[in-house]
Amino acid sequence: MCYSSGARCCAATLLLTLIAIPGLAAEGGSRDSGPSDEQVAAELRDTALAGQNMAWDWVSELATRFGPRPAGSDNERQAAVWAAGRLKALGFANVHIESFPITAWVRGTESAQIVAPVAQPLVAAALGESPPTPAGGVEAEVVIFPTLDDLKNAPAGSLTGKIAFVSERMVRTQDGAGYGVAVAARANGPAEAARRGAVAFVLRSVGTDSNRIAHTGTTLYADGRVAVPAFALSGPDADQIERLAALGEKVRIRLFSTASYVKDAHSQNVIADVPGRSHPQEVVLLGAHLDSWDQGTGAIDDGTGTAIITAAAELIREIPRHPPRRTVRVVLFGSEEVAQPVAPFGAFGGHSYVDNHKAELASHVLTGESDFGTDRIYRLALPAGVMKSPFATTAMRVLQPIGVLPSQAPAGEGGTDIGPSAEAGVPVFELFQDGSRYFDIHHTADDTLDKIDREQLDQNVAAWAALVWLAADSDVDFRAPAAPPAAPAPH
Amino acid sequence: MCYSSGARCCAATLLLTLIAIPGLAAEGGSRDSGPSDEQVAAELRDTALAGQNMAWDWVSELATRFGPRPAGSDNERQAAVWAAGRLKALGFANVHIESFPITAWVRGTESAQIVAPVAQPLVAAALGESPPTPAGGVEAEVVIFPTLDDLKNAPAGSLTGKIAFVSERMVRTQDGAGYGVAVAARANGPAEAARRGAVAFVLRSVGTDSNRIAHTGTTLYADGRVAVPAFALSGPDADQIERLAALGEKVRIRLFSTASYVKDAHSQNVIADVPGRSHPQEVVLLGAHLDSWDQGTGAIDDGTGTAIITAAAELIREIPRHPPRRTVRVVLFGSEEVAQPVAPFGAFGGHSYVDNHKAELASHVLTGESDFGTDRIYRLALPAGVMKSPFATTAMRVLQPIGVLPSQAPAGEGGTDIGPSAEAGVPVFELFQDGSRYFDIHHTADDTLDKIDREQLDQNVAAWAALVWLAADSDVDFRAPAAPPAAPAPH
Repeated sequence: MCYSSGARCCAATLLLTLIAIPGLAAEGGSRDSGPSDEQVAAELRDTALAGQNMAWDWVSELATRFGPRPAGSDNERQAAVWAAGRLKALGFANVHIESFPITAWVRGTESAQIVAPVAQPLVAAALGESPPTPAGGVEAEVVIFPTLDDLKNAPAGSLTGKIAFVSERMVRTQDGAGYGVAVAARANGPAEAARRGAVAFVLRSVGTDSNRIAHTGTTLYADGRVAVPAFALSGPDADQIERLAALGEKVRIRLFSTASYVKDAHSQNVIADVPGRSHPQEVVLLGAHLDSWDQGTGAIDDGTGTAIITAAAELIREIPRHPPRRTVRVVLFGSEEVAQPVAPFGAFGGHSYVDNHKAELASHVLTGESDFGTDRIYRLALPAGVMKSPFATTAMRVLQPIGVLPSQAPAGEGGTDIGPSAEAGVPVFELFQDGSRYFDIHHTADDTLDKIDREQLDQNVAAWAALVWLAADSDVDFRAPAAPPAAPAPH
Repeated sequence: MCYSSGARCCAATLLLTLIAIPGLAAEGGSRDSGPSDEQVAAELRDTALAGQNMAWDWVSELATRFGPRPAGSDNERQAAVWAAGRLKALGFANVHIESFPITAWVRGTESAQIVAPVAQPLVAAALGESPPTPAGGVEAEVVIFPTLDDLKNAPAGSLTGKIAFVSERMVRTQDGAGYGVAVAARANGPAEAARRGAVAFVLRSVGTDSNRIAHTGTTLYADGRVAVPAFALSGPDADQIERLAALGEKVRIRLFSTASYVKDAHSQNVIADVPGRSHPQEVVLLGAHLDSWDQGTGAIDDGTGTAIITAAAELIREIPRHPPRRTVRVVLFGSEEVAQPVAPFGAFGGHSYVDNHKAELASHVLTGESDFGTDRIYRLALPAGVMKSPFATTAMRVLQPIGVLPSQAPAGEGGTDIGPSAEAGVPVFELFQDGSRYFDIHHTADDTLDKIDREQLDQNVAAWAALVWLAADSDVDFRAPAAPPAAPAPH
């Protein structure tokens, strides 16, 4: 059970020793003369925090052995086989792979240059699902729009033969709210540009760094296709075009891409259970995704997510005296990155899970997803009905000491992977991570292992293990309706 | 004369007003009832520090209009024409371009991948002067050497058909000493690998960042050529190969490059003078280079160097009541980056200058070079003979208030550009810059304008303007021999 070596293990051993002191163990009472649920949760938390968890080893081997794992690729498939093998070897139950068909998008050779006023190379990345350029590339004058709204305000036909460029900057925030704003240009820009006659679309990368590395990401289908080739420019390249225009120059650029679609590809979900002791049909579902973008190695998106939930489940499998009352299920989803909100281009892994497990969803008691990198968790959101419950009070007693505050709002829809389950009625919890630096790296070649902060990774495992234990060993109904607001005091 | 706008100019105006107060101006005495040299130096310093200097505008326009300016390229030539035009328009004298022939190295299409155990893309950049691979690329097993010495210790023939990989990490230091150590592998690795039968050479980028961006740079000719294709891997890619090997895997990689040589190319130096008042034949020579590597835009290497020396000379031309006693000459050198220490592959710009100005070198009284990015100057080194002189005392009184300490050692050989002049006997001064973050960016695509800290850029101009004024308006003999060490006190 000691996944790390040296000093960290020693610290953990000391902690475990302290926890085992009878006086401490008795404090807070216990159900079956063993430690209470809260005590077990605290033990799971402290064990994880001391580095005694498998998250680093998992993500290190995953990102090293398989590198990028784009949806439908051989690397994604091999990673799934490896993950299933590791989960089986660890002793998880019901370990299996559920495959599903997809149309895979494959980046080809690509390049971008300023061709006038003076030739200069550009760092750019085709957006996911973007079609290839003509074989000779596409070359045209750039028209700059400060925001997507400015592009939308351009008259029909005003971009005929031009390349539309949305230069909007993403705002850095702890909760990632800046992403939600800026990503609209990536999602909808190509369609809006095409409608006005543009031959291609580029945008400033949706990211917060200033490296010469472009942030890819999926753009949306409109009327069943992405109409024009679409690229993200690195921040400094977007600056360069803006400055050239400010010097009074007309800027012409050339874009080239041999991106293609593979219609008969497959992706897959990997499933593994820690079976419940008394109510195994009741499932707490933990999700993360095994696929990644193709230029990095998917270390923080979402190698760490798979590591966090797997390590948390493994601690729950190993540490307590008995399994939890309910089943803890880990699902490592496939094909998350290219998910589209509209059929037939669905959030494939998440949809496939719901399709295959329809009958079980009514007894899925709670679900959560880890897909926001590796930095520390600072907030917990629970379903509305339990926000003021004893469960929430206990959870906060365990989580607040490691820097987690309660959210004032109930949990939302979770992420892409568990979205379809949430839509089908499964209650959601959210452990919000600090996203201040996440979008420096997100969807880039820079998504590599060295970016992981191991102490913060351990804190994530600690919070997940503790919270999931409390939920899985309880009989709480997370579907309970929220209490009506208290009547205002008479005045 | 106001190159900036708004608040910074107002602050500068205030400073100038204060300096103009008669009581202050009289303090310290004066030669011709005007301000003393020290007072003028302080005024130049404070004007520059307040942002009233042209450095930012210069480097911004240079890096924006011309982007990368590799030696022998059209971009380098256009940048030289632009620079000469700007210098003439400003009112510099003797502005002209001195062209010289070179063999230009041109990066082609290039790529690198891990092909086994699992396919993964690598971020790599061919080293300057490195030959192309065969048309089908070169694919082989990697043999890892922790240091260049380990490669040198490999027996003859032991690398037949293999790719040698030196994985040494550069150490981050303020004075850049780590570069001098690590760069030996880049300079000599290809020859050492080829001697042992290797078909190619790769090394961990000589840099201190952990971005997925490779650091290029020139590798040395041995026996008139670079024997095998040679590439720098980004830090995270070097890590990845090391980790795969640590997992017990044999790592095979594939390298591809269409690099080529253009034998009839030209580069050029741009020369501009602030003519001396009474001894115009005595020259203080300021150097920086206009060429850059081909993947970034040469903003910090060495756009800022050209901006610093030009802005300092322009302040000296404009601010004092009269020109300095001696001539201040700005030389914007060409073709610095591909300089080789051995003929016929010389430090072209520097050698060409010495060839064209041989007869004048005896009256070149002092020279310095700015080629270490944009961060603040923290140390001044002077020629040995003046280290303890009144000149040094005055210089330190002006420079210490802006964070510059005296070096305990005399100045060395300067940099690549002024190296041939120094070798010909011209005394050297060095204004050492903080290089702590320089090698995060050096020789990469990330060398872009956004990396420039404008306040530190202003501090550079301030130090250069003040020191160069003091030297140029003096009659100090910087060739004077160092005083013999004092006899030890009797005991």
